[in-house]
Amino acid sequence: MMEYIYERIYSIGRNSVTMTRTTVTDDHVIYEFAPDMDAVRTVQPGDSLEVHTRDSLDGDVQTEADLVSEVPEEVNAATGPIAVAGATPGDVLAVTIEDIRLREDRGRVLVMPGFGLQQGDERTDAPRTRITEIEDGSLRFNDREIEVDPLIGTIGVAPAETSYSTLVPHDHGGNLDTSDVSAGATVYFPVFQPGGLLAMGDSKAAMADGEVCGTGVEIGTEIDVTVDHVPDPAVSLDRPVVETETAWKTIASAETIEEACEAANRDLCRLLERAEGFDFTDAYMFSSLVGDLEVSQVVDPLLTVRNAVPKERLNNPLVE
Amino acid sequence: MMEYIYERIYSIGRNSVTMTRTTVTDDHVIYEFAPDMDAVRTVQPGDSLEVHTRDSLDGDVQTEADLVSEVPEEVNAATGPIAVAGATPGDVLAVTIEDIRLREDRGRVLVMPGFGLQQGDERTDAPRTRITEIEDGSLRFNDREIEVDPLIGTIGVAPAETSYSTLVPHDHGGNLDTSDVSAGATVYFPVFQPGGLLAMGDSKAAMADGEVCGTGVEIGTEIDVTVDHVPDPAVSLDRPVVETETAWKTIASAETIEEACEAANRDLCRLLERAEGFDFTDAYMFSSLVGDLEVSQVVDPLLTVRNAVPKERLNNPLVE
Repeated sequence: MMEYIYERIYSIGRNSVTMTRTTVTDDHVIYEFAPDMDAVRTVQPGDSLEVHTRDSLDGDVQTEADLVSEVPEEVNAATGPIAVAGATPGDVLAVTIEDIRLREDRGRVLVMPGFGLQQGDERTDAPRTRITEIEDGSLRFNDREIEVDPLIGTIGVAPAETSYSTLVPHDHGGNLDTSDVSAGATVYFPVFQPGGLLAMGDSKAAMADGEVCGTGVEIGTEIDVTVDHVPDPAVSLDRPVVETETAWKTIASAETIEEACEAANRDLCRLLERAEGFDFTDAYMFSSLVGDLEVSQVVDPLLTVRNAVPKERLNNPLVE
Repeated sequence: MMEYIYERIYSIGRNSVTMTRTTVTDDHVIYEFAPDMDAVRTVQPGDSLEVHTRDSLDGDVQTEADLVSEVPEEVNAATGPIAVAGATPGDVLAVTIEDIRLREDRGRVLVMPGFGLQQGDERTDAPRTRITEIEDGSLRFNDREIEVDPLIGTIGVAPAETSYSTLVPHDHGGNLDTSDVSAGATVYFPVFQPGGLLAMGDSKAAMADGEVCGTGVEIGTEIDVTVDHVPDPAVSLDRPVVETETAWKTIASAETIEEACEAANRDLCRLLERAEGFDFTDAYMFSSLVGDLEVSQVVDPLLTVRNAVPKERLNNPLVE
């Protein structure tokens, strides 16, 4: 398989600090997060990357006549995997998303039979494809303008034991379809395998919490990220956590939303215990008053929610 | 049962418009929304009321030594019911919440055995009560200050056929525990019985989306509302809808969150069809891009979610 990786020199910021950003192209993608993946590239902690991603349907849908009658076996191509030197099981991998740029001037929204929240409603006309032209930071759905607000749908690391298709979200990340996984956020993953083995793809130009019809605006992107690892974190992670500008949010996926809520809240209580000195029950009560349970997606084979707490309520739980 | 209802003259607004606000005290409460309730009071469409509510535990919990070992049979006392003259099955009842004032200088947060998201976790120490002192618009949970942000937990109308305890949310409203049901919002209910028969209570001084531990900060309140009815609405409602400053949100409750999501989204698609001219499938796709699925509560006998769409995306669907 061809690997096409090169480096570019970027001038970043007001002070024209020159930094090297390694480009990882989408010539090498995975459709499964497996424990024993081979890294396409090894980078150093603190390295900045530009990761090119394909749209979730590998470019197969270009017009509204391109209908998809079932979820393809290979979907959500994730570029990578990228090893981070020194990342060791038990560590935490930190992925800071600096920018997500669209690689196409249009995206696609799909309804597929047997997929999505209203698949059982007789008024749902599936398959259907809508192409959304994009111009000047807004996209057009029918005659409505929607602001472009990109996010990464699938992002994760090599799992502990089981392999997961890139359609599935789980403790390793994967198809989280979480709107907070966007520019300005840092996503933390448990490291299950040496190097962590990060891969990402399935970006959306826009998506509402829930992803109810089964997709957002699917699109290829160039993603600027900086990867780092937190050795010996003050608290070990069982599942991903996202740090936004204003909040810490635990993320959990499970067969039912109830189970996902329970896990995300349990994780949040643990962070509050660790960093804020509450006992478990007080942390639990506090989380009933402050922060919110939020829906990521309700359409994938496992369902994903997050539990937020404002940053002023929770010190960074990963460091002492 | 004693009814103590009186009227006060209020001076409201910059222009000192004098209006009459009818006070409905908490001497008459219900613990069940039934189809055949007797109104405690009949008001006219457009009337403004001040509704006094008890805390959800009827004042039984005043110190941290007051532990509650199971959810009481009578809980969430709802003041009313109040009939709105002329409201007829098929109409919509509109309840605009102008203000929610606390009647107490402290509230209570509870964990009860067999109730709440972490009831199965061995670290959950139940029963536990935390009293939160309130001063200058903030409440104290242990040593943390939390801004007071009151909401109405239980609000609804007489159901169509089945009676529901005030612990249960359903199509008539009831124990919705929805953070948007707060000052500035208008809640719309289907009218199932003549007069609508509105009742409300179970206010919280603060509550996060999810209400994970089973309660917010439970507290007695005085609620200023204006009630109105929309005869022959342009779209009939099967369930409550809330209009906030920025969004329309459908609200649905069901045995699983998945079912609640499906119903809330189906309702939203109907509103988008009706008011925006989308067909069902395009409305469904649009709702996957704009607005969010949101969690109200995941702890009551039925679970409640809402599906939002920004107001600039949806014209008032109730009027032509």
